[in-house]
Order: sequence, then structure tokens, then C-alpha cells
Amino acid sequence: MKIAIAQINPTIGDLPGNAQNILELARQAVAEGARLLLTPELSLCGYPPRDLLLNPSFLQAMDIALQQLARDLPPELAVLVGTVEENLRAHKTGEKTLFNSIALLERGRVQQVFHKRLLPTYDVFDEHRYFEPGLEANYFTLDDVHIGVTICEDLWNDEEFWGKRSYVTNPIADLAILGVDFIVNLSASPYSVGKQQFREAMLKHSALRFQEPIIYTNQVGGNDDLIFDGRSFALNRQGEIVCRADGFEQDLVVVEFDEVQRDLRLSSIAPEYESEDEEIWHALVLGLQDYVRKCGFSKVVLGLSGGIDSSLVAALATAALGKENVLGVLMPSPYSSEHSISDALALAENLGMKTHIIRIGELMQGYDKTLVELFAGTEFGLAEENLQSRIRGNLLMAISNKFGHLLLSTGNKSEMAVGYCTLYGDMNGGLAVIADVPKTRVYSICRWLNRNGEIIPQNVLTKAPSAELKPGQVDQDSLPPYDVLDDILQRLIHNHESSAQIVGAGHDPATVDRVINLVARAEFKRRQAPPGLKITDRAFGTGWRMPIASKWTAIKNTYHQVFSVRQ
Amino acid sequence: MKIAIAQINPTIGDLPGNAQNILELARQAVAEGARLLLTPELSLCGYPPRDLLLNPSFLQAMDIALQQLARDLPPELAVLVGTVEENLRAHKTGEKTLFNSIALLERGRVQQVFHKRLLPTYDVFDEHRYFEPGLEANYFTLDDVHIGVTICEDLWNDEEFWGKRSYVTNPIADLAILGVDFIVNLSASPYSVGKQQFREAMLKHSALRFQEPIIYTNQVGGNDDLIFDGRSFALNRQGEIVCRADGFEQDLVVVEFDEVQRDLRLSSIAPEYESEDEEIWHALVLGLQDYVRKCGFSKVVLGLSGGIDSSLVAALATAALGKENVLGVLMPSPYSSEHSISDALALAENLGMKTHIIRIGELMQGYDKTLVELFAGTEFGLAEENLQSRIRGNLLMAISNKFGHLLLSTGNKSEMAVGYCTLYGDMNGGLAVIADVPKTRVYSICRWLNRNGEIIPQNVLTKAPSAELKPGQVDQDSLPPYDVLDDILQRLIHNHESSAQIVGAGHDPATVDRVINLVARAEFKRRQAPPGLKITDRAFGTGWRMPIASKWTAIKNTYHQVFSVRQ
Repeated sequence: MKIAIAQINPTIGDLPGNAQNILELARQAVAEGARLLLTPELSLCGYPPRDLLLNPSFLQAMDIALQQLARDLPPELAVLVGTVEENLRAHKTGEKTLFNSIALLERGRVQQVFHKRLLPTYDVFDEHRYFEPGLEANYFTLDDVHIGVTICEDLWNDEEFWGKRSYVTNPIADLAILGVDFIVNLSASPYSVGKQQFREAMLKHSALRFQEPIIYTNQVGGNDDLIFDGRSFALNRQGEIVCRADGFEQDLVVVEFDEVQRDLRLSSIAPEYESEDEEIWHALVLGLQDYVRKCGFSKVVLGLSGGIDSSLVAALATAALGKENVLGVLMPSPYSSEHSISDALALAENLGMKTHIIRIGELMQGYDKTLVELFAGTEFGLAEENLQSRIRGNLLMAISNKFGHLLLSTGNKSEMAVGYCTLYGDMNGGLAVIADVPKTRVYSICRWLNRNGEIIPQNVLTKAPSAELKPGQVDQDSLPPYDVLDDILQRLIHNHESSAQIVGAGHDPATVDRVINLVARAEFKRRQAPPGLKITDRAFGTGWRMPIASKWTAIKNTYHQVFSVRQ
Repeated sequence: MKIAIAQINPTIGDLPGNAQNILELARQAVAEGARLLLTPELSLCGYPPRDLLLNPSFLQAMDIALQQLARDLPPELAVLVGTVEENLRAHKTGEKTLFNSIALLERGRVQQVFHKRLLPTYDVFDEHRYFEPGLEANYFTLDDVHIGVTICEDLWNDEEFWGKRSYVTNPIADLAILGVDFIVNLSASPYSVGKQQFREAMLKHSALRFQEPIIYTNQVGGNDDLIFDGRSFALNRQGEIVCRADGFEQDLVVVEFDEVQRDLRLSSIAPEYESEDEEIWHALVLGLQDYVRKCGFSKVVLGLSGGIDSSLVAALATAALGKENVLGVLMPSPYSSEHSISDALALAENLGMKTHIIRIGELMQGYDKTLVELFAGTEFGLAEENLQSRIRGNLLMAISNKFGHLLLSTGNKSEMAVGYCTLYGDMNGGLAVIADVPKTRVYSICRWLNRNGEIIPQNVLTKAPSAELKPGQVDQDSLPPYDVLDDILQRLIHNHESSAQIVGAGHDPATVDRVINLVARAEFKRRQAPPGLKITDRAFGTGWRMPIASKWTAIKNTYHQVFSVRQ
């Protein structure tokens, strides 16, 4: 039996478009001799549909689209499609009103519906908001082959692999007891650095432990802040990879179940990426491309400062959209260095993109003049520094509004963390492309990008980072060196370490406390940031839910420290 | 037995401050002869603590603060304090790692801990993200009185009252079977218009149905977008209100349980508000005051356009912070009408607040000049209109940065819904004070405010609303009349109606489709908006979780409409 994996890239809510995509891949699967087609979790509406699920007319339209798709599909193919099903007993039992479901479509109609059993409600996931967990093991029989069905998180509770349980039940254990021939998993698993290796190791452990071949189907594509990496794969009963689809692209791959050996045969295996830098690059290109496309844009604009952040974003944008669709705007002030212009122009030439130069000196003077009375007797400071950034932000938005280019913001994760960025200034944009990329990683990606020749000008890689908002300013006047800062941030944000633990790892106590305070105080800025492409397991996006008007910082992490502030 | 209700206003994460507040109210309760003190849900850390709960050092500090509070409290008083407890079996069973808990403190230590059983995971609530539901009925015995303990949502599942179940269990039914003498409910229930009447009706039904007196304790205060209204109350066995605390203020009230009658005695009952307008006014004053205070500010700045939105926000700010702490900035352009200045000055005089006038004509010319080359051959349009708004936004932020005044944004819900507002312009601010107040409600609150004499100048109430971004412009050039718009928005956003249903209610089909499209297209603006004070059951805040790059709009609400876009 040949099983095709349709690693599709849906647009959220685009029911006809997504159905059409499934239909086309189904025809292709038939042409390749497949008997069964797998599509990702919620493939009909795209993942995550979020509060569209609260809209009855959306649910009704999805149901109608599913029935129509069943009629349209080739009759010789069984297809698993991700959809939602209403929980008809909800109002009587007090359960949630929907199930996150997989429908088995065959011979023109819905033959069976399976309910997701483990519902993630952490980080970016809100599944308990909408869904009731399914209570029963999901399986079906096709041509005498017994197939177990799991949906995404259903396979993420192997207590042997994790060393703990995250849910009460383990669906794969239930299916193993039932003795299914193999298990399919229909996923929409967002990308983060290194996650694919983790997925493969985890499912290898489960395949071996339960002696079950596993076919893992993942969504691909960017949906707002989330990037889905695809890389669907299959493991045989020995836990060996027998098939892997491409990363960061829609793909259709076929794997065969040998009914005599009762195992999966070796199929095509897409290679792994050579480095994390390469992997992140492809993730960001896809996330950027899909956000622009799915929002209905084709062109983008961004400010080019000659610094490394905007250089990387420009390179990503030209790779994602084509050099003819990217406009770089240079906006030097009297404080800008010569190299800020020459480096930006060199970059633009390397990328083949258009640029404009707009000098902001006169507008700075205009604001100074306008505010002269009100600001009389005050010193040049943060207000004036931010004004420069906000003049640039205004100019970029004017260009965006005038020509219909989506504005990309270029801030990195390190500065988003400590608030080294200007709200309504350089934070402006429809998408914050590298908002989840720490500064040290920005450098390493740029070095990787230059592996076969200069794309990012050498001087951009070697000069001291600077916001150039006053004469001679460099970032390290205000911040610790980026390698120090990024290590503190990793410990604080990803590892939830206390200040004592971070100091214990060798960091200077005053620096640690200062960074912790900066992170807490920048919450109001992050709340108003554009969506940022998520590439780590703890991004400042939909999965970061912090109070703003709060008095807690991780500095006060012992009893005496807590209560000393009462004095 | 006298029971005191401590209706406290905590700051999120301020463990020592919140503990000190509980301690002071406990001493006051003892002075009033109380034997038992009730505090709201999660009173030690404030509600909602959100992702602070993911921080182990925060949990550790809370535990230490709880133990210390137990030692510090008057020994003759039993106190129920809201806290979290670790779920020690979580890693073994796969449950969530925390319980949303109430600790019974008495004689220097924690005597008992109760776990919340019904965990809301809808709208702004994310309790399944952190908590495991408690499985058992919660009660304790104090001086031979049997007291049932429920936490907030635990009392929101009376299937007789609702006509359906929202959770599988009903904790009050369990407690009634156990025959407790009365039931306490420790809540942090956010304000929305009319919610108090709903709460009282619901608990009256439960008191009567289960023949149980109920003492309902609610948090008070503003925490980011959420306003907690207090108005704690008690019902006797007949479902009659015997006590009600103040609205929108910290309060301590005492109710007495008659051990012979086995019922609550009549106590003090704070009056209800005369109108929804009055109630919303008090809610917004508190929300504004607390956001400013808890963020560490004392002064605010806002733009005064002479329009009704900024007039209402100015009135709210002077009421919340004192007139000396509110700076109004008038920023007329060449397109501004005469009355925009005179009305704003009249308002400021009525309120007694300071103003500055900053003319933006020269800056507009500066941008025109700077962009002349790039914009050559294009018409005056959205880009130029937005530039005016963004110049004003920049000036206000410069003042905010220079003088440490928090900037208030003044947009209403109707314009936030349809995107009739400028991102990085008039949307700028630390807090969007009336972002959940529809335009028609803005008018009615202002009329209420003028009930005893003019505060909002009459001309502001009667003139046609205008953004004044081009000569002669009024809002109704671009939008339907606000009474029509607000009714469509109410049906779309609150009632989840389809376009067919909205048209069926008598609205023009083209207008309905246009509004629905505008709402969908403005999602990217709302994502970057400041926190807005929530006063309805469906606000554009932490409880509004919509995709941006989505193709669904409620217009496509029938099968044929869905599939027609495929052509």
C-alpha cells in the first residue's frame, strides 16, 4: 500500500484555496499510485485558525467545504483531512464545543472522524480554548491494513523519552495494544531551531518502544509569527528513517507499506541542513515570503542603516520576494557615519535591490524648532534620540502607504529583550523579520551567508554596532557585549533562571540585575511590536504572555530580597 | 461569626506590597470583630499573573511570602489567601504543574489548601495554560461552622441558570450535598458593562436552588487591560442581598453569620449605579489611574483635537490623576478648523488642566519637501493624511520621553474596529483608555458627564466628528453613521452574526460587507495597539486572538459564497 504525504502550505481561513490545494495533491498522489493521502492537522482551514473558530458561519462553511471536497476527490483514494467537528453533547455535559479532528474521506463522503486526544495549552498553543480532548484510540481499516491515527501532540507524551508525563494518556500506547499495522500522525508543528532532530529522536524512540512504523505529516508555511517547517518523515518498525520530505517547501512524498513484511519500505530521504544558520535562513525566508503573500502584498520596503540587522533582513527579503520587489531606504542624519551610507549601498549592490536616500537633518531641525519652547532648558537626550528614529519610521510608513509596500522592521531579539529600540520608530513595520534572532546569531547567519563570497559587506560584519543617534555612539555604551548579553538572555528567558543562578554561571551581578530590569521594563514596547517570526522555543510573540504593570522581576528571588523592598 | 471581605487592589507580582495590604486589612477586620477574613482569588500575587507563573523563582518567592504572612497575621483571625500550590504528582500523572489555590491561614501557619475546580479558558482567561483543576469539594470547619470554599469560576456552572453546562462538574452542588453552613467565593472577576447585575442574579439563583448563603469576594483595581470592579456581596439563604461593598474602590465590609438562624444577617449595602454610563465612567477612571500608578508614572500627556474622544479621555484623566497631572497638547494643522482649537481650550478650562499649542504646518511642509522627489507625480492621499497623524504622534512621544509623562491614546472602539485610525500616529500611547468604548457610548458618557453643568463643551457634542486630515473632511465621508456602524459591529463582534443575519436585521448589504471587510483588514493595526481598558465581553485585547494573514471574512458565510472566490 502506497501512502502519500501532502505537506501542504495552507492560508488560514482560505477554505476554497486550501481545498483546491488538497485536491491537486490528491490527483498527483493517485498518479503516483497512492491508496491513502495524509494531510496536516486542520489542513482545511490552516493552523492555527485561532478565534475564527468562535464564528459559527466559519464552522458552517468549513463543514460544507469538507463535504464538497469529499465529493470532488478521486474515488480510488482515501484521504485524511484536518477539520473541526462540533461536540454535540457539549451543552449537556459541560465540555468544550469542538473537537480538533481528522476526517477520513473516501468514496465521496466522510467515512470516519477522529478526535485529537492531547491538546497543547502552553507557549503559542491555546487548544483548550476551543477543543474538547477525544477519549478514544483512533484507527481505521483500509484494504485489511489497520492504521492508527494520531494528531500532532498525541505523539508528544512518551514518558520514557521525556522522563515525565505531560498528559495523563499516551495515545500511541493505546494503539500499540490494539495492534495497528502502522501509525500516522497529522501535525502542524511550528519550527524552532533544532526541533526536527528532536522530533525524529522522539518518534524513533516511540517506534522502537511500541514496535510501530510511524508516518509523520507536518504542515509547511508561515502563518503570522509561526513558521511550519514541513520535513514530514516516516520511520520503520526499527525506528529508522525511511522517508523525509523537503524542509520549508510544499512537498508530496510517497512511502510504501509492505503488507508481507508489515513494515515501511525505504523511500526518498531529503538531506538535513548543514548548520543551524542555514536552517534558520530557510525558515526566515519562508516566514517572510508567506506573511507578505498571504497578506496580499508583493513588495516590501525597509530602512537600510548600514548595520548588520537591516543588512540581513534585506538579504532575506530579496531571497524571499526577488530583488525587484525590495526597496531599501537610506535615511542618514548629521550623526550618521560615512560608512553607514557606503556599507548600505554596497549591500544593495550585492543584492541587486533598489535604494533611495532621504536625508533627515532638516526634519530633525524642524522638530527641534517646533519643540524649542516646550523643551527650553533641557539637555539633548532620549527624547531627541528617539525623534530621529521616529522621523525615519514616519518616512518609511509614508512610502509604505503611498506605494503599497509592506514595511519590514529589522530589530533583533537581543534589542527587543532589553528595549534597545524605539517604539513607533525602528520598531515600525508589518512584520518583525528577525525579532526572535539574537544578535550573536544575526552575525553567524551573515557569516554563513557569505560562505561563497561577499553578500553582507565585510565592514558590516566587523564594525562596532551602533544606533548612531548621537555622535560617536556605539551599542556597547549602553549594553554589555552581545555575547554576554545573549547568554544572560538565554538563561533568563529560555531557561527561567533566577539572577542567582545566572550570576552562578559566571556573570557579573550588577550586569545581570541591570539586564533583568531592562527586560521587565521593555514589556510595554514588546506589547506593541509587529508580529515577529518565531524560531526559538520562547519568542516574544503570541506565546509570551506577560503583565505590563507588574512589580515582579527575577532579581527579587529570595525571601529577604523580596521583603527588603517593603522598607 | 463575623466574616470580613477584604476587597483588595493588588499589583501584579508585588508580593510584599500585596501581603502588607492583606495584613493591614486583617488588623482592621480584627478591630471590627471578625473571625474570618476573605481575600480575592490569587490575592497574594494579584490576578492575572500570566507568565510570571512560569518562573520558578517567582513561585518560590510566593511560597515564602505566604508562610511569612501566616506568621504575621493576627492569631485570632482565620484568613483565606489566594495563592498557587505546586502539583507534586504532575510529572508522574501528566497533569499541569500548579493549582490555582486558596490557603487557609490561622495560628501562624497554613492550615489547609483548596484548589480551584473550574478553570476558565476563554476570552482573556488562560487558566489551563498553568493550572490543573482540583477534583474535590473544598470546605473547612471554623468554630463548628462548616464553610464551603469556591474560587471564582467554580460558581459559574449552574446549568439551570445558564440553560446549559459549561463544565462537567458543579462545585456548589457538591457542597450543598455536604451540607455546609455557607459558601464563600473568592474571585477575580473582570468588569464588563452590566456584569454585576448578572453576577447577583446568577448567585441569587444558586443560593435559592441550593439553599446556601453565599459570600462573594471580588478583586478590585486595574491590571493592564482588565478592570476589576469589586462590588463584593453576600446573599442569604433566600437569595437576598444582605451586603454589598463599594464599586471600583478597595473596601472592607463585614457580614455576620447567625449561628442560631444558620443564615447571614443584613449588613451594609452599597447602592447600585444609576446608569451604565456612570458605571463605565468609574470603571475607566479606575483602570486609567491604576495603569498609570502601577507602571510607576504620576503624570500623563494627551493630544487634544477638540473632538469628543480626546475630550472624554482628558476628563477621565483629570478625574483619575488630578488636573495638575494632565497635560493636553493641541497640534493644529492648516486643515484644522477654528473650533478644533477653541473647543479644546474650552474643555481644558472646564477641567482646569494645562495645555500647549504646537502648530504642525511647518513639519508637514518639511515632510513634503523631504519626500518631494520620491512622491513626484502622486496625488495627496492616505500617505499624507497619515503623516499628519504621525507628526502629532511623534511630538507627543517626544514630550512623553522628555518629561516622563505617560501618553494616553484616545481612539474609540468603533474606529479601532474598522481601522479608522493611524498606526504610529493617533494610536500611539501607553494606554488606550477608551479603546473598548463604541463611539455612540462615548457620546452618552459625555452627556451623562454634563448632567450637572458643562464639562465637555456643547459644541464638541453637537458638531460632526472629523479627523480633519484634509479640508472639510468628516468621519461620515468614510464610514456609515455611528449608530449604524455600532449596531453592525455589536452584531459582528459580540454576537458572532453572519453578514446574512446582520442584513436580516435591517442593515444595507453593501454597508455590512464593507464593515466586515474593514474589520478584517484592520487586524494588523489592532495587533500593535496599546493595551485598551476592557469594558465589554468582547474587547480587542488579550482575549481577542485573531490571525492577521487570513483570507476568511464573515461575508463568505454560505457555501456558494465560499466557493465563488475560487473562480
